[in-house]
Amino acid sequence: MFVRLTEDESRRMLSAARVARLGCIVDGGPYIVPINYYFEGDCAHSHSLAGLKISALRENPRACLQLDEIGGVAHWRSVLAFGNYEEITMPSQRKSILSNLLSRFPLLTPVESAIAEDAGSLSVIVFRIRIERVTGVGEE
Amino acid sequence: MFVRLTEDESRRMLSAARVARLGCIVDGGPYIVPINYYFEGDCAHSHSLAGLKISALRENPRACLQLDEIGGVAHWRSVLAFGNYEEITMPSQRKSILSNLLSRFPLLTPVESAIAEDAGSLSVIVFRIRIERVTGVGEE
Repeated sequence: MFVRLTEDESRRMLSAARVARLGCIVDGGPYIVPINYYFEGDCAHSHSLAGLKISALRENPRACLQLDEIGGVAHWRSVLAFGNYEEITMPSQRKSILSNLLSRFPLLTPVESAIAEDAGSLSVIVFRIRIERVTGVGEE
Repeated sequence: MFVRLTEDESRRMLSAARVARLGCIVDGGPYIVPINYYFEGDCAHSHSLAGLKISALRENPRACLQLDEIGGVAHWRSVLAFGNYEEITMPSQRKSILSNLLSRFPLLTPVESAIAEDAGSLSVIVFRIRIERVTGVGEE
């Protein structure tokens, strides 16, 4: 049976998940990449190397995060959260977010771990998506 | 180690997968929903009830499909395919695509199965995303 999740249920899934698909607009078209993140204070926090997605989000900060639990064709839930990209440039904030990411994802690659220990390096982008609206649907 | 998949590897993943995240543009912002699909002749074929995503794709046909295999933080692959939405309106084509979907997804819900048996009903939208470009990245 098709169901619409309540905002509370959707937000709980968003808070609990560790991986989501980040959607943004690149060259006028949709673009999706998987990201690791943690959720705190209405924001999904993550990091990235500079690249297409970051250039695009700097130009157009509108973003969405999609996550799902798929237990079968007729048993799944999908949450879609809409928000805006905010880049974190203050060194103390960068350091705190990178530490949180590392503690939650201890298996980050050596490259990422090295980057996280050197929060001063601007080669890693630290960002958050400030979530404004969350919807969810599913079948059960 | 970060790797870029070849176009062949990426296309093989796209052909083999059954679930992808469809990205489109809704009200000027990114929008993502999971879809079941099958791939044939450069197109991902799927179906949907009318709604936000279909209205949006009729207005702006640019779409992408993202799929991934996540085996761990340092062991994953993600493929991103870019293309355009094409709605299928010819009854014989609708019927053939719906039959193919049903045979590949025998566990579609009763509602979807009923719809598929009545390909003449316009309440179900049959569409394909014609893929123009495929990229893939990963870590292994």
